[in-house]
Amino acid sequence: MDQTTVRQLLDDVRENRVSPESAADRLRTLPFEDIGFAKLDHHRRLRLGLPEVIYAAGKTPAETAEIFARMVAHGGNVLATRASEEHAAAVRERVPGAEFHARGRTICLIQDSTERGKGEIAVLCAGTSDLGPAEEAVVTARVMGNRVRLSADVGVAGLHRLLAQKELLATARVFIVCAGMEGALPSVVAGLVAAPVIAVPTSVGYGASFEGVTALLAMMNSCAPNVTVVNIDNGFGAAYVASMINRL
Amino acid sequence: MDQTTVRQLLDDVRENRVSPESAADRLRTLPFEDIGFAKLDHHRRLRLGLPEVIYAAGKTPAETAEIFARMVAHGGNVLATRASEEHAAAVRERVPGAEFHARGRTICLIQDSTERGKGEIAVLCAGTSDLGPAEEAVVTARVMGNRVRLSADVGVAGLHRLLAQKELLATARVFIVCAGMEGALPSVVAGLVAAPVIAVPTSVGYGASFEGVTALLAMMNSCAPNVTVVNIDNGFGAAYVASMINRL
Amino acid sequence: MDQTTVRQLLDDVRENRVSPESAADRLRTLPFEDIGFAKLDHHRRLRLGLPEVIYAAGKTPAETAEIFARMVAHGGNVLATRASEEHAAAVRERVPGAEFHARGRTICLIQDSTERGKGEIAVLCAGTSDLGPAEEAVVTARVMGNRVRLSADVGVAGLHRLLAQKELLATARVFIVCAGMEGALPSVVAGLVAAPVIAVPTSVGYGASFEGVTALLAMMNSCAPNVTVVNIDNGFGAAYVASMINRL
Amino acid sequence: MDQTTVRQLLDDVRENRVSPESAADRLRTLPFEDIGFAKLDHHRRLRLGLPEVIYAAGKTPAETAEIFARMVAHGGNVLATRASEEHAAAVRERVPGAEFHARGRTICLIQDSTERGKGEIAVLCAGTSDLGPAEEAVVTARVMGNRVRLSADVGVAGLHRLLAQKELLATARVFIVCAGMEGALPSVVAGLVAAPVIAVPTSVGYGASFEGVTALLAMMNSCAPNVTVVNIDNGFGAAYVASMINRL
Amino acid sequence: MDQTTVRQLLDDVRENRVSPESAADRLRTLPFEDIGFAKLDHHRRLRLGLPEVIYAAGKTPAETAEIFARMVAHGGNVLATRASEEHAAAVRERVPGAEFHARGRTICLIQDSTERGKGEIAVLCAGTSDLGPAEEAVVTARVMGNRVRLSADVGVAGLHRLLAQKELLATARVFIVCAGMEGALPSVVAGLVAAPVIAVPTSVGYGASFEGVTALLAMMNSCAPNVTVVNIDNGFGAAYVASMINRL
Amino acid sequence: MDQTTVRQLLDDVRENRVSPESAADRLRTLPFEDIGFAKLDHHRRLRLGLPEVIYAAGKTPAETAEIFARMVAHGGNVLATRASEEHAAAVRERVPGAEFHARGRTICLIQDSTERGKGEIAVLCAGTSDLGPAEEAVVTARVMGNRVRLSADVGVAGLHRLLAQKELLATARVFIVCAGMEGALPSVVAGLVAAPVIAVPTSVGYGASFEGVTALLAMMNSCAPNVTVVNIDNGFGAAYVASMINRL
Amino acid sequence: MDQTTVRQLLDDVRENRVSPESAADRLRTLPFEDIGFAKLDHHRRLRLGLPEVIYAAGKTPAETAEIFARMVAHGGNVLATRASEEHAAAVRERVPGAEFHARGRTICLIQDSTERGKGEIAVLCAGTSDLGPAEEAVVTARVMGNRVRLSADVGVAGLHRLLAQKELLATARVFIVCAGMEGALPSVVAGLVAAPVIAVPTSVGYGASFEGVTALLAMMNSCAPNVTVVNIDNGFGAAYVASMINRL
Amino acid sequence: MDQTTVRQLLDDVRENRVSPESAADRLRTLPFEDIGFAKLDHHRRLRLGLPEVIYAAGKTPAETAEIFARMVAHGGNVLATRASEEHAAAVRERVPGAEFHARGRTICLIQDSTERGKGEIAVLCAGTSDLGPAEEAVVTARVMGNRVRLSADVGVAGLHRLLAQKELLATARVFIVCAGMEGALPSVVAGLVAAPVIAVPTSVGYGASFEGVTALLAMMNSCAPNVTVVNIDNGFGAAYVASMINRL
Repeated sequence: MDQTTVRQLLDDVRENRVSPESAADRLRTLPFEDIGFAKLDHHRRLRLGLPEVIYAAGKTPAETAEIFARMVAHGGNVLATRASEEHAAAVRERVPGAEFHARGRTICLIQDSTERGKGEIAVLCAGTSDLGPAEEAVVTARVMGNRVRLSADVGVAGLHRLLAQKELLATARVFIVCAGMEGALPSVVAGLVAAPVIAVPTSVGYGASFEGVTALLAMMNSCAPNVTVVNIDNGFGAAYVASMINRL
Repeated sequence: MDQTTVRQLLDDVRENRVSPESAADRLRTLPFEDIGFAKLDHHRRLRLGLPEVIYAAGKTPAETAEIFARMVAHGGNVLATRASEEHAAAVRERVPGAEFHARGRTICLIQDSTERGKGEIAVLCAGTSDLGPAEEAVVTARVMGNRVRLSADVGVAGLHRLLAQKELLATARVFIVCAGMEGALPSVVAGLVAAPVIAVPTSVGYGASFEGVTALLAMMNSCAPNVTVVNIDNGFGAAYVASMINRL
Repeated sequence: MDQTTVRQLLDDVRENRVSPESAADRLRTLPFEDIGFAKLDHHRRLRLGLPEVIYAAGKTPAETAEIFARMVAHGGNVLATRASEEHAAAVRERVPGAEFHARGRTICLIQDSTERGKGEIAVLCAGTSDLGPAEEAVVTARVMGNRVRLSADVGVAGLHRLLAQKELLATARVFIVCAGMEGALPSVVAGLVAAPVIAVPTSVGYGASFEGVTALLAMMNSCAPNVTVVNIDNGFGAAYVASMINRL
Repeated sequence: MDQTTVRQLLDDVRENRVSPESAADRLRTLPFEDIGFAKLDHHRRLRLGLPEVIYAAGKTPAETAEIFARMVAHGGNVLATRASEEHAAAVRERVPGAEFHARGRTICLIQDSTERGKGEIAVLCAGTSDLGPAEEAVVTARVMGNRVRLSADVGVAGLHRLLAQKELLATARVFIVCAGMEGALPSVVAGLVAAPVIAVPTSVGYGASFEGVTALLAMMNSCAPNVTVVNIDNGFGAAYVASMINRL
Repeated sequence: MDQTTVRQLLDDVRENRVSPESAADRLRTLPFEDIGFAKLDHHRRLRLGLPEVIYAAGKTPAETAEIFARMVAHGGNVLATRASEEHAAAVRERVPGAEFHARGRTICLIQDSTERGKGEIAVLCAGTSDLGPAEEAVVTARVMGNRVRLSADVGVAGLHRLLAQKELLATARVFIVCAGMEGALPSVVAGLVAAPVIAVPTSVGYGASFEGVTALLAMMNSCAPNVTVVNIDNGFGAAYVASMINRL
Repeated sequence: MDQTTVRQLLDDVRENRVSPESAADRLRTLPFEDIGFAKLDHHRRLRLGLPEVIYAAGKTPAETAEIFARMVAHGGNVLATRASEEHAAAVRERVPGAEFHARGRTICLIQDSTERGKGEIAVLCAGTSDLGPAEEAVVTARVMGNRVRLSADVGVAGLHRLLAQKELLATARVFIVCAGMEGALPSVVAGLVAAPVIAVPTSVGYGASFEGVTALLAMMNSCAPNVTVVNIDNGFGAAYVASMINRL
Repeated sequence: MDQTTVRQLLDDVRENRVSPESAADRLRTLPFEDIGFAKLDHHRRLRLGLPEVIYAAGKTPAETAEIFARMVAHGGNVLATRASEEHAAAVRERVPGAEFHARGRTICLIQDSTERGKGEIAVLCAGTSDLGPAEEAVVTARVMGNRVRLSADVGVAGLHRLLAQKELLATARVFIVCAGMEGALPSVVAGLVAAPVIAVPTSVGYGASFEGVTALLAMMNSCAPNVTVVNIDNGFGAAYVASMINRL
Repeated sequence: MDQTTVRQLLDDVRENRVSPESAADRLRTLPFEDIGFAKLDHHRRLRLGLPEVIYAAGKTPAETAEIFARMVAHGGNVLATRASEEHAAAVRERVPGAEFHARGRTICLIQDSTERGKGEIAVLCAGTSDLGPAEEAVVTARVMGNRVRLSADVGVAGLHRLLAQKELLATARVFIVCAGMEGALPSVVAGLVAAPVIAVPTSVGYGASFEGVTALLAMMNSCAPNVTVVNIDNGFGAAYVASMINRL
């Protein structure tokens, strides 16, 4: 994957600095750190240019703190998502400067505040109940080095609230739009802007909202062509892609 | 219905041969006309104040024509829905004045053009592909004695087209809103009007639209409280209820 | 949306009382009150003629109480739905006169008891387990200024109980029918009345009732044409639409 | 399975009339006739006391005719279900007396018209479109030796049509109730009778009827306890069970 | 039911104060006892010949005890299903003789032990985890006056256990077969017996068993024609129908 | 939406060049062309900077040709998707230069070949059966002014085929990845690249592929964070968003 | 993947027989043949030890014939699945010796009849309608070098037919069991044998069989632990895995 | 099932050592031990050559301990799956040597450590969250007498981690691959190995992962032909089949 490294390796073989056997091994094994219950992919940061992120939900507080601390030691910003207060407490014991954002359930440490995005990312959400995924998106985008603006409670049943965000609609470079229930907001926003819209269905609603499935399906069927969709409540993923786009 | 029977019954009441109470009971347990493959409920028109309607889809052209003709003979307007060209041809052989509306798949004969609705019914549809159910609604509402106005191609990804219908939005007494794909239009319309909105999911779309199921689910989860929903492509049912409301 | 206001604004521009820039701004921004975690739409009451309602489920007791109190200050009736005892306690500390209805999970304050509906709204429910959504509908309809009558436990497997409600069936202007399990009651009621029936599927049942989905689907497929449907357990929405209809 | 046969066999072994080896073989192999593409279970008629039935849908006309003819040769009544006109033509070439009932798609030959049921089986259907499965049930029940009465077009949205069948409701020994759309008829019938009700969901409807799935689910959730359910459009199965019950 | 009213009505007929016809009508539109939160249908016992049953799941212990006690006062056997220990405690305070069966979650009082069924009902279940619905069926059938035999842990992956029940398979008059997971047992049993099989899907399993939905679907598709199906875990309904059949 | 136009309009009002009434009207009506069965939004090209596209599936060949021709007259590139041979024939009669690409079902006319994208868009597909949506994406991206490279038949069960595309993986600016069946390719590609991946589930497969639903769900759950998803077979939408990104 | 080749290549680099650049290239590109619309993986035969197979369903007859002919040229047995008569005709024009099996929809050419499996593979199917996938499995297994025995029409509702296959049940090394409808046969077979059972759900059935989904779900939930499952109608996949197992 | 036993029995009958009646009985009843709430099938170990396993989830700790102890007494290895800490405590009181593996929720006692498998079983899992089912598979395979190797955290979004397991991929005889989310790992592994792959979908994920259903569906649609699938989180079943295969 790193053409230079591969050629260097092959030059080393030709020059007898490396045996063919060990070269064959190294060609197969990119660097990662095996800590027993997980394989930390520090190389990922180099390879993809974006920090590895800890998905805390399936891990114990102790495991999360261990991984978090090792990542901090490798430099760069570190982010844990789907974290509980218990995860946060464990992490902050190891890394006192880490911040916990309860609504979006994220823990982060910003060691590098370079702005990498070329414009602003707008995060809109339909109702106050959608703020969880929206804030996960906001924190993620900030950790990835972007300017972000959040506009909440701009659902389609009161269009004037959305239309009042005209300046934001006109200037942001990428849009992340979170909505539960009927999931209509991304279509409406996408019709008003000339930029990619990443739709985040949220699990907000009851009955036939099926914990976000209805919103997801609605967004997949958007009549606006500039909409793509991520998983339910996946504010992180939306912000990750938005960051990649905003760096272009 | 047997007009003679009803008169006889009322005579009996006048002559004290039947008590008013038992007459009231008998009026409830109602006569209908059995023609072998169906039981025609001519009384329904009196009981519900609205014409019985023929659902042609499961019937042969001959059966449809037979029922249509018998209903015509009982007076009032007659409507057949989900009709094919073959149904229409068979009906028009028996009832030459009957009209066939191909896009909405309706056959109708208007024998009584009294306007019964007190205001106007608005029918809006998101795209040109939604015109089928929309026109079924328009014809049904007309047969039921309403003034109707249709506004097509006002989907949410181009809000200005919808906002341009301001006068219609401000004046109609009931709204029928047809949309497929993400089914967002009823929510947006409902936020703009102070009247009941009847949402008709349409089978327009592909892939994860699931032949209208996504639109149906989205509409069930509308964040606007003045929305109720009927079955997929059920323009007829929407107009039937709208007519009832418009007579109030 | 308020034609007079728009014209006045444009007159003001012509007369130089308002600059074009600020007029452009005002045209975009209808009045709402931003309290940080939500945008209160007091204008809605004027615009739609019906009170804004607080959906308490996703909000903390403190947030709910804050919004409730602000709405009380703007006058008119105030309603919170999906409220817990904790929500109620917090609201009543701020607004001592507010009532909590536990079964239907509503908090309300009636400051204006004008009767606005022109007739009576009937609320029927199939079993005693359906009383939750039914009572949500009853309270909502009352807050909206309607006379309401509730008839419980009239499910279709014991038709005589339903037929005994003959007077109510004959006189109400709009019907709200709540049923779980097979969701058959709205179809039967709709066949007996000449008025709109709003069907509320409830999450009552087990196994293949799928928390109300079976009832919802059954109601969408009603063989009676005067039935429209709202989301599972959405007694509030049903009453909201019924109120709009009852004012016509 | 035939205790007598087993004992006879073992007696034969004790008496050395049969070797243990061949007895072991015979114990494993109950009589059926292998005709290459199918194993005809003539034993079934004896074992269950009811004729084997040919499910024609997956078979060629020639195969169907072959099996039909072989069954005729074994005596008793023969029935083929899900048969097309092509199947019927092929069968009647081999068995000229066989009758084809197009609406219910059955081919039958009644060689034994003994009445075996002790009472009458009632078959009710909600609309004229449900007549297909209803007639499959009627023919099946007749082939099985029952008196059957069919009452069509008695759907729940016009209760008076159903209540007019009072005599049938009071006297039949088992009920088969076919309905599509919301599938409510079995619940209503079951509340009016003191007998088992076998519900047959039909694929009648459109949109969210999902080809009978909604009716099936509704019937599974019947609030009446005397309802059991068979597969969509399975008039045959309903009549088969009804026949077994009617023989008790 | 109001015994006095019935007698009065019959007196009126004898004295020619009421015609037999209208008396017959009034007997159909039936009295019930309204206790506020429910309408007790004591007449049901006469009408259907089977006791009314309390579905405790949606009721408080106090409500359950109240209804249970009133039913006891009317005589006959009384049954409450889906009851918790709390329900049982409340009932037994009012009706000390009531029995609670924890596994099947039933409370019952047998005041009338007449055997009404003409044969034996067999209840089979696939695994020990299916014993809950199976025992609900056993208790229900006993309350309804039947002899019942239960055979547990006879799942299809160890056929010899099932085949060992040969005597039961040969003699029972109706079969109730409970199975979760792949729900195959009813098909296998039905192939071995010449009697109606009522299949009860259970919520036993994990993953793609979908809390009994897979078993339900499998049973609906049984290749044996003598199978009908009730809702998931509905041992009560199965026994109710089996009782009706066993009385024939 | 065009701030300059709005201010100009208001200036005109102040200067009495435009009456307030007509200004109010114009503020509501952005330019679109109403041709009866559709409202052509030529303004869209200006507003979003991308051509309006004709979704031919629900339109007749004549309607499609009419709209296509009008769009050609307004300049810029024109694209019709989901087009049949009949659509193509009708269009080419009006616009002889239009090209039809049968596999991707697109008709296009390129009047402006300016390259607008800043890099290359890669389109990968898992199997040869996925070529339909892939080619729809390729044509769309070209019409929108991008360089595009297609690499087919690189499914995950033969990883070496994918890894052989190393140069493309390293250089493209945006990736469109089409896959049916298990839909795994986008995850694998996303792990190998440092760019946004737009996943297009295709309807390729059978049985439990559910016409693309399985692939869609798999893609929504990608363990790679740089994946967003569009509707099944929606190569057009993927390319539309990719074009927007590639212009940044 | 071929360690020897990799080492040889690296030795070549050390010995200057190959330049590092071209070695880097070769390391990425395993041999496959690009014929435009597909990448033929002749290497696969070597790598996995089993023939590549052509999935004809999404390919034209000409494409299928082209690929088939090229594969024949590389030696070994060749198989095309999901083939129509048209595919077969096109192939046989190029490869006259190819056989077409219509029921299982396979085209094959056996150039190498070495028996590679160590035992016998048993293929059982529940009904005659399941013969399609069963024969696909039989042909596939033969092409892969196995002895195969097929036993049809041994469904669970007539257990004696299955038990009569005792010798086959006792001796086969791997079992492939095809069933539609309730999909119970694999569980029953698995309880009778001490070998792996590969279950193939078939699309046989109607109504709630959902084209094989019910059978698939049932098989996933088998109470027998020696069952694994493949996709609906995937006789090919079952035989492929069975072949791998039979070679061990 | 044991031909020798059957012949012996029949010889005994011929020699009058056993009466025909008791032979008939014994032919029906294979040995199992009835302990009231369950029928222990000790014969199974002989019949299938593999230990019976206790599914603890639906059993009380006391029941589980009772069965476990009885099985220990019959010799061989004993395994309980889906066990909680409470189950483990109860078992270890009766069988102190039993081991509890918390992550995979298994209790086991190895009394016979004979290696019965002929090669190694590889267990791979996509993420650390999939370790539960993976460890259930590992313990099961060991109890069944296999060498097992586990490789965790080798998900497809970081292919280098998987490719680093080259030696394991090349040598294992059977593969068990556990993955949640998009479930892509089995396809990728299957493309790299020449051995059967048993895919275990896990309930890891959120939103549209539907607790493992998405992974299950994806695996059913694997484009690699050497994949079969077991139920969600069914590490036990996968290992059971893998053990059978590994003994061949």
